[in-house]
Amino acid sequence: MPIVTFMPDERSVEVADGENLLRAALLADIVVHASCGGAGTCGKCLMVIEGGEVTALPSPRLTAEQAERGYVLGCKTTVHGDVTVRIPEESRPGQAPAAKGGTRRAVNPVLSRQERVARLPRHTSPPPVAKRLVRMMPPDATDNINDASRVKLGLKRGHGIRDATISLPALRELPTVAREGNWVVTAVAAEPCDTMPCVSGFQPGDTTDRQFAVAVDIGTTTVEVAVVDLNTGRIVGQQADYNAQSRLGDDVISRIVASTKPGGLDQLRDLVVSSVSTLTVAALEQAKADAEDVVCYYVAGNTVMTHLFLGITPENIRSGPYVPVASAFPWMRANEIGLPGGRTTRLYAMPCPASWLGGDVVAGVTAAGIPWSEKLTLFIDIGTNGEIVLGNSEWLVSASCSAGPTFEGGGVLHGMRAADGAIEQVRVDANTLEPSFLTIGASKPKGICGSGLIDCVSELFLCGAIDRSGKFDMDIESPYVRRGEHGPEYVIVTGSSTAHGRDIVLTETDVDALMRAKAAIYAGINVLIESLDANIDDIDEVVIAGGFGRYLDLERIMALGMVPELPTNRFIFLGNSSLLGASLVSTSREVLRTARRTAEMMTYLELSVNAGFMDNYISALFFPHTDYTQFPRTEALRSERTRAKAVK
Amino acid sequence: MPIVTFMPDERSVEVADGENLLRAALLADIVVHASCGGAGTCGKCLMVIEGGEVTALPSPRLTAEQAERGYVLGCKTTVHGDVTVRIPEESRPGQAPAAKGGTRRAVNPVLSRQERVARLPRHTSPPPVAKRLVRMMPPDATDNINDASRVKLGLKRGHGIRDATISLPALRELPTVAREGNWVVTAVAAEPCDTMPCVSGFQPGDTTDRQFAVAVDIGTTTVEVAVVDLNTGRIVGQQADYNAQSRLGDDVISRIVASTKPGGLDQLRDLVVSSVSTLTVAALEQAKADAEDVVCYYVAGNTVMTHLFLGITPENIRSGPYVPVASAFPWMRANEIGLPGGRTTRLYAMPCPASWLGGDVVAGVTAAGIPWSEKLTLFIDIGTNGEIVLGNSEWLVSASCSAGPTFEGGGVLHGMRAADGAIEQVRVDANTLEPSFLTIGASKPKGICGSGLIDCVSELFLCGAIDRSGKFDMDIESPYVRRGEHGPEYVIVTGSSTAHGRDIVLTETDVDALMRAKAAIYAGINVLIESLDANIDDIDEVVIAGGFGRYLDLERIMALGMVPELPTNRFIFLGNSSLLGASLVSTSREVLRTARRTAEMMTYLELSVNAGFMDNYISALFFPHTDYTQFPRTEALRSERTRAKAVK
Repeated sequence: MPIVTFMPDERSVEVADGENLLRAALLADIVVHASCGGAGTCGKCLMVIEGGEVTALPSPRLTAEQAERGYVLGCKTTVHGDVTVRIPEESRPGQAPAAKGGTRRAVNPVLSRQERVARLPRHTSPPPVAKRLVRMMPPDATDNINDASRVKLGLKRGHGIRDATISLPALRELPTVAREGNWVVTAVAAEPCDTMPCVSGFQPGDTTDRQFAVAVDIGTTTVEVAVVDLNTGRIVGQQADYNAQSRLGDDVISRIVASTKPGGLDQLRDLVVSSVSTLTVAALEQAKADAEDVVCYYVAGNTVMTHLFLGITPENIRSGPYVPVASAFPWMRANEIGLPGGRTTRLYAMPCPASWLGGDVVAGVTAAGIPWSEKLTLFIDIGTNGEIVLGNSEWLVSASCSAGPTFEGGGVLHGMRAADGAIEQVRVDANTLEPSFLTIGASKPKGICGSGLIDCVSELFLCGAIDRSGKFDMDIESPYVRRGEHGPEYVIVTGSSTAHGRDIVLTETDVDALMRAKAAIYAGINVLIESLDANIDDIDEVVIAGGFGRYLDLERIMALGMVPELPTNRFIFLGNSSLLGASLVSTSREVLRTARRTAEMMTYLELSVNAGFMDNYISALFFPHTDYTQFPRTEALRSERTRAKAVK
Repeated sequence: MPIVTFMPDERSVEVADGENLLRAALLADIVVHASCGGAGTCGKCLMVIEGGEVTALPSPRLTAEQAERGYVLGCKTTVHGDVTVRIPEESRPGQAPAAKGGTRRAVNPVLSRQERVARLPRHTSPPPVAKRLVRMMPPDATDNINDASRVKLGLKRGHGIRDATISLPALRELPTVAREGNWVVTAVAAEPCDTMPCVSGFQPGDTTDRQFAVAVDIGTTTVEVAVVDLNTGRIVGQQADYNAQSRLGDDVISRIVASTKPGGLDQLRDLVVSSVSTLTVAALEQAKADAEDVVCYYVAGNTVMTHLFLGITPENIRSGPYVPVASAFPWMRANEIGLPGGRTTRLYAMPCPASWLGGDVVAGVTAAGIPWSEKLTLFIDIGTNGEIVLGNSEWLVSASCSAGPTFEGGGVLHGMRAADGAIEQVRVDANTLEPSFLTIGASKPKGICGSGLIDCVSELFLCGAIDRSGKFDMDIESPYVRRGEHGPEYVIVTGSSTAHGRDIVLTETDVDALMRAKAAIYAGINVLIESLDANIDDIDEVVIAGGFGRYLDLERIMALGMVPELPTNRFIFLGNSSLLGASLVSTSREVLRTARRTAEMMTYLELSVNAGFMDNYISALFFPHTDYTQFPRTEALRSERTRAKAVK
């Protein structure tokens, strides 16, 4: 069988004759960009053949320049003998995303712990699953009730827990543990909201000083875990990494497609479970905690991610009438899923109200304190799917707008994820149009990520280099605006300064992609507001959620018309609200109950069949909007800049 | 290592040097009598050395005659080289006990199905676990709720089941099954009384015509299973066999001791689980049912048997302050226990209110209809432990009297279990004292079982051959009454007619054992009656439970003073009420709920610390009782018989 050797990793793998190079790379455990999951449509899995015989199919996604330089698409290239392949830097997703407090500079300060806590009601409710200390009187001749009843009495008297059942493995260990602990035992007791309290295990004596929960946010791109010390409610370990499923496709649709292939569902589940497991082990180490002391995992993810994580097929989400398998999930055992932990470690997945409205949003809305707030709050989680929720403690309407992969760098010529070497911040001189920019990790630029794209387009728009409809003003004489292979383009950096030696440019197609993404979000917001017969100005507070939100310049997303132009003090940045919400429910049964009720009360508007959405969308396909009177500050800013240029 | 060959089985086994013969026999899978579990105290594991070198310790349990004939006790004999051993017939427990309708002749007709049903309230409550047909509307663009919510709606509308949770494996199969069944599915749904309803699996289409429960009675001696067709409530398969644990000891105390040895608990669990499994497979075959179609097992056993079956140590039941681990058990999965069934098959163990009052009695009292009855009912399950319950739907008092192993043939010189060759019925000619008897299976007699013992003693008492204090009248001149090796004895059959060539006799020690056993029961009954400030005549109904009860002659147990002398029409025989109760709860959630409530409301009187018990016991250590005015019919009968003799 042919041997494929990947450079510069110097990693070799034996493959079947006729195997393609993308699959060979995955077999060799080398992560390669493949937004389309190997369909040959994204053009990202670029490779260079350094030796050996291959059959490379032509692709419209390869530029003439790339073809000339010997680039092929890995997914379209099959091997017929030993081959040496180089994987260029731009085909790699880069280093792991920075965890909290990492190296990337956040534009918006997220709320502090104190500020966040202040948004939630004061509650003294215990965690849904926790260790409970049970002190019992030893049995004697006058009081010889059985061990289990003695524990139940202790749980009732000491913790107000009634009618607890004790699992069979717990019953088996109880007599020994009770006597070893001299009738003081620690019970791992779940007191969930939807079923009866249950004790899953016992430890002799008082071990309540060591109890942790693991909050997990499963994003399509990134997986993040936080270890919560249940005695203090504080996060004592936190880790993030790419979702290992990414190698099978960048977006949820590619993942669903991959899941329908033979063995695909199991493979996707194994990949994300391994991501969560690895991160948990690292976070527990950071927290100096044992997996045995984890009482429960709380997992929040979008509906497709949650299905895949649990090994439930998401296939019917993709084809009409677009139904998920479930919106609520039973309490599970961590070892049933394959995660680190003891026999007693449980797992709870946050409910997913609709196909495109998942547990991540439920967790986020809860973390934002909306279920306890009287203020009309707009919650926006900007990502591949822009999830929007509007409401307060009384009612909630929600929608999901397919913003496409633009914010993740997908569908953008030199787009990339927010990884090392990604241009993340751009400023453009109003007169010369000369750009200055920052990259993540201050590395040589490899491409541009979502926040860089937003920065760049809004700068060019405010300078007048891009008009309201997203077209370049080709009358401008500037070395930075030119007509390239793909039409008009803006040169952010030339090949002499990039990691891969090629120019990084912004094309009109890229601008258009961003226009459509922001229009979808703005239109979604408007549909929700209209559904309540409200006005934009009625919004008391806007919560920007998602890790991505931290890196967005508020003035710039307003300038593009992505979010309504409101006083900036009405905006709040929460960071990864999904992870935050999962952490919060781990600490309080009352918060979990509220989160569950929140999931049930969310009215979901399906925008694809909504009469008003298309009108709103078309109106929003301008910078900032067809009705630019809605954006007076942006208009003033634009006039000022262009006037400055005119004056000069 | 030495090889031990057992005859007449011709089965060989390799054992460690110094191993004893009882353990060697068990290793060879040969079942040998060992009432004491190998302690050397019961003297039952008789073996004959035919060749080879052994070390046999002397034992007071071996008669001079036995020693002369070359008999040794297996448990006291160790091997030091290859040995050939013959296991005589009397050391074997015989064939399996007859299942319902077997070859043994019942003295008392048990209630018919109709009569039993008439004692229970009419109820239309569904089984606690059953298949439920769910017809759903297929999703479309206007109704795209998820699959699971669609099922829950169907369960609510079609079956009134609210807030059901769906297990993870069930969720995983739901999307495929729902579409395969064209939105008609069969849900295996548990709707237990103590926790939320839960669906554990789905089948496409309507498969509700095939659903069964398995009722299990785990007796210390015998295990019996019944397959219940949940669509008709009828028993469609039934099997019984010895509890395979018997090889490790005859009674519960020996079993507890065995369970505390290294690996003992697991071994005992494996043995009884294998008994239940084998019987279930046979009963399912009889019922032409698949294990996959078993929705739930309902297991009733005494407290020690229930603990052992679930792998929970019973050790603290044996030593002060005598506490079991639990009185109630969680819902379990059959495959967690190791029983035949599908992934969805559940298991429920009937609650055991006290150390010596188990789920068998709870099931029996329920089967007897007592929880719905206004009549003051006395429930007696006669066995190694005589369990007694007195009460009605309002209140229940209960006690357990250690009757010892007498009724199982234990502690009786020629006692044996009710197996092939056991003398089960005896009549004695009032004049000549000549016995006539019947054996089980009409085989050559090997020994005497409990019912034969009761018959024999009561006959001899009524004839005047035994006096009120249980002593033989040695003034009688009869070849059947003689002074033997163990003192005065009655010859039931001489060696020329027995299976083993030796006389089968009844000794004064045997009579004394029976006296103590019956006294314990009668004293227990009286303590319960006195605890209610009632009189014997207030008892409206006496329910005799237990398979054993079917073989007892009512007049004779009254004559001995084991049960109160009441009009015979107040007595009812239920047969194996434990199995019956387990079958009944399988068919009705309401019956299960009542059984659980019954377990909770039973007041248990611990006789060993009861002030009145010892007085009552001593008063009952006469035939029929110190106060024989309580037994006028018996007195009349005795006068009549002895007068007949005197006249002659």
